[in-house]
Amino acid sequence: MAVHPVLIDGHWIPGQGTSTFQSVNPATEEKLPGEFPISPWSEISHALDAASAVSKETRNWPGSRFADFLESYAEEIEERAESLIEAAHAETALPRSPRLKDAELPRTIGQLRQAATAARTESWRSPIIDKANGLRSVLAPIGPVVVFGPNNFPFAFNGISGGDFAAAIAAGNPVIAKGHSSHPETTRIFADAALTAVRESGMPKALVQLIYRTSHEDGYRLVSDHRVGAVGYTGARETGLKLKAAADAAGKPIYLELSSINPVFVLAGALRERATAIADEFTGSCLMGAGQFCTNPGVVVVPAGSEGESFLAAVAERFSKAAIGTMLGEGVRKSFAAGVDTLLKAGAVLVTGGKPGGGKGVCFQNTLLRVSGSDFLKNPPIFQTEAFGNGSLFVMADSTEQMEQIAESLEGNLTGALYTDTAGSDDNAYTRIASALRTRVGRLINDKMPTGVAVSAAMNHGGPFPATGHPGFTAVGIPTSIPRFAMLQSYDNVRPSRLPAILQDKNPTGEVWRKIDGQWTQGDVA
Amino acid sequence: MAVHPVLIDGHWIPGQGTSTFQSVNPATEEKLPGEFPISPWSEISHALDAASAVSKETRNWPGSRFADFLESYAEEIEERAESLIEAAHAETALPRSPRLKDAELPRTIGQLRQAATAARTESWRSPIIDKANGLRSVLAPIGPVVVFGPNNFPFAFNGISGGDFAAAIAAGNPVIAKGHSSHPETTRIFADAALTAVRESGMPKALVQLIYRTSHEDGYRLVSDHRVGAVGYTGARETGLKLKAAADAAGKPIYLELSSINPVFVLAGALRERATAIADEFTGSCLMGAGQFCTNPGVVVVPAGSEGESFLAAVAERFSKAAIGTMLGEGVRKSFAAGVDTLLKAGAVLVTGGKPGGGKGVCFQNTLLRVSGSDFLKNPPIFQTEAFGNGSLFVMADSTEQMEQIAESLEGNLTGALYTDTAGSDDNAYTRIASALRTRVGRLINDKMPTGVAVSAAMNHGGPFPATGHPGFTAVGIPTSIPRFAMLQSYDNVRPSRLPAILQDKNPTGEVWRKIDGQWTQGDVA
Repeated sequence: MAVHPVLIDGHWIPGQGTSTFQSVNPATEEKLPGEFPISPWSEISHALDAASAVSKETRNWPGSRFADFLESYAEEIEERAESLIEAAHAETALPRSPRLKDAELPRTIGQLRQAATAARTESWRSPIIDKANGLRSVLAPIGPVVVFGPNNFPFAFNGISGGDFAAAIAAGNPVIAKGHSSHPETTRIFADAALTAVRESGMPKALVQLIYRTSHEDGYRLVSDHRVGAVGYTGARETGLKLKAAADAAGKPIYLELSSINPVFVLAGALRERATAIADEFTGSCLMGAGQFCTNPGVVVVPAGSEGESFLAAVAERFSKAAIGTMLGEGVRKSFAAGVDTLLKAGAVLVTGGKPGGGKGVCFQNTLLRVSGSDFLKNPPIFQTEAFGNGSLFVMADSTEQMEQIAESLEGNLTGALYTDTAGSDDNAYTRIASALRTRVGRLINDKMPTGVAVSAAMNHGGPFPATGHPGFTAVGIPTSIPRFAMLQSYDNVRPSRLPAILQDKNPTGEVWRKIDGQWTQGDVA
Repeated sequence: MAVHPVLIDGHWIPGQGTSTFQSVNPATEEKLPGEFPISPWSEISHALDAASAVSKETRNWPGSRFADFLESYAEEIEERAESLIEAAHAETALPRSPRLKDAELPRTIGQLRQAATAARTESWRSPIIDKANGLRSVLAPIGPVVVFGPNNFPFAFNGISGGDFAAAIAAGNPVIAKGHSSHPETTRIFADAALTAVRESGMPKALVQLIYRTSHEDGYRLVSDHRVGAVGYTGARETGLKLKAAADAAGKPIYLELSSINPVFVLAGALRERATAIADEFTGSCLMGAGQFCTNPGVVVVPAGSEGESFLAAVAERFSKAAIGTMLGEGVRKSFAAGVDTLLKAGAVLVTGGKPGGGKGVCFQNTLLRVSGSDFLKNPPIFQTEAFGNGSLFVMADSTEQMEQIAESLEGNLTGALYTDTAGSDDNAYTRIASALRTRVGRLINDKMPTGVAVSAAMNHGGPFPATGHPGFTAVGIPTSIPRFAMLQSYDNVRPSRLPAILQDKNPTGEVWRKIDGQWTQGDVA
């Protein structure tokens, strides 16, 4: 069986290493045919050299060049939609439709096109002009970006097509993508599309490069290499923290999306008003995609007593009747089982599920656990163990005060949601709990489940550590996610003709927003 | 001799530790009378608890409350101007006038007032409203901020009065200031002013706290404590990197300003046109304050040959004639001597100076070294050793190409400056060197020395590692430096009445700039 080549410096070249891997179809638990290389350091270093050369060549290019590439790439992906969907379905067991075809692929293409628009207009660069001091500043490309994609979104977060990729390119940087080992064939097809788009848009051939896998040590070496500008990583916490330590020590910005239990508080009035509807919503949100979403609701806090009990019973009934989804792989199942086990050993009680199997291929029963609010508060860290999959922990809270204490005890999360009634009986409790929750989550939600992350300028798919590595940044949202991959460049007393177009007196397009002497405007410098 | 108390939770309380220290007058090399405590962990933890409580109390307060404090504080400082100048003069040997009285203190007070204005108008919070998606986002306080001030600006970068302090408070956070051990009395007077201002402006009593010194271990523990939101540090690279490692491991954002040699390129045409004027400018910039500025020009690249030689000779003459300044302390002198020694051992040649002494108190001769461009390029890291003080290394470059290579070999710096002629003969060389330099420096300067850092929205007092820990942020400049101490908070489907005022349909002041559906406006949501 031939080993797939890697994409380095604009060419598909045979891997220089001797080790390979294959992906597994989670539905059949059988190996898939393609064999993919593990790249040794020499290969990675080659990619870094090529990316450095691209950075040097393109660092003063207008955003429109990168926009052209992104738009061409979106078209090339559309042309390969069918093969992408087939490959991703085989490698992840995620349903072809609606998930891959009707949701994730359109989202991915839309995100690339949004990024293209942002790259073209350049408003994300926040140009600032201070006439009195002779100072002008602007965000500019940071240099080669390494993007590590996760297992759970083969399109929308793929290192070579997802949110971090789109943001890094829109900021004017070359990308070295590290595909996830669970879906290399999907990633390979994207790389083929990207290479075509690079040629069609006349970009330097090494703008987008792909390696499939490295040793752990070479991963740490990669993110801390002097030729790297920044790193984006979405994935498991343990691996992410090791990469973070390596990048941090070298002073390389690294943006991480690590783990989140996405607490949902359902208050008493909401249960009285619409418990059935909320039970349906929660079940859909928690079991969709076998629960393998960054924003999966992993903890639900409800009032103890009859209303909370009957809500839990209603959810349990739905969980036991719902189809059991196929997971992304054996690693996910093991990790989910370990999470459930940790919670049980800590004193949580099994409500339903709790065992592997019950569905097709790699799977685990839809699982609910419960714990009292006072037990939760005896050891908040252990009860915040992430069990990434189709399960959730219910916390039965004695009072509003206890709910507030639970909110205060939470680690950083991507999201936090509150359900309240429409009549206002929950409003006082809302104020207290939301105020505590607000500083612990990136996105505060009302009357809605956390799954579903709009690509919006006002999105925050981020949050305090350990959800991410920095609470000031979002991984999703255009143009808000783009400045992560930029450096701030100030020009002091620089002669007018030497300024980049975006900082000259005349607004280069009449469209870019600039802050001139404290006022945002699309006009020229007066 | 009584030991000065620490300012914790709104009260001057006796230190709980047993160790103390005294500062030294660098002009007399004698100990100054005050004895200051080294705080043990119990005391630091007390401060962290108090700061946490302030964060919790104030997290939804309008910026105007913090603005009131900052304005009151500026007034209180003005009232204590004389004692501040006396204390700082005794502790740092910096001249009373113009440095302390006419430059640094007005700058400090002006910066606090600029921060107050920014806190009041809240435009720094970048509110974003996406009507179609029901999403609204805004920057919000990150939590207690620990600020470590450096030795070289007892007012403008002091942990309790400088740029990081002003930004952290403007962002709505309590501050725990760690004063620099070289000027504790100056810091104490600021704390006295801050405490009065806290009371006058009706802020929580622990908004501003002060400890003077900790053990190294407690410093690492402090920056990684779960109660901390973020850290600001300005100072030596070695200490900064240790604090960074501790904060990074705990996922706490830490903003560092570490070291910079601030390269200055003087091109041939500029030398032909105005060598004398540039020699004067350079001498003033390099020797001012005994060279103890973050933006001190530590490397000068000039063309080899007669023009470069006569420029160097002119500078050397000025250096040998100029008064020798008193340094901030023995630590600075030792470190400067070590830097000079490292450069000499690497092959640099002494032009003038090179020995300790020659002036009043702690001092070192005004020192110039030289090295050829080709020798520099044989070992760029060693020739970029920072010698923080009244000295500089001249690099005699053979060609424009070599200057470009030198620029490409540079580590991250705060600034990079280029002098060119006005007739245009240097323009081609400028383009090549500036393009290389641009990505290595935070602020690119034309025809001006790097010292002098305007407090401007378009300033970048930052740059790539190791100048700072992240190239996207500036430590100086209002409002640009403020978002460092903020988290991003998104509101998804949150009911209108529950949104913070800044995100409600009506612009709360008619003044705050908000991005509504992609357009910056001071208007209401339509």
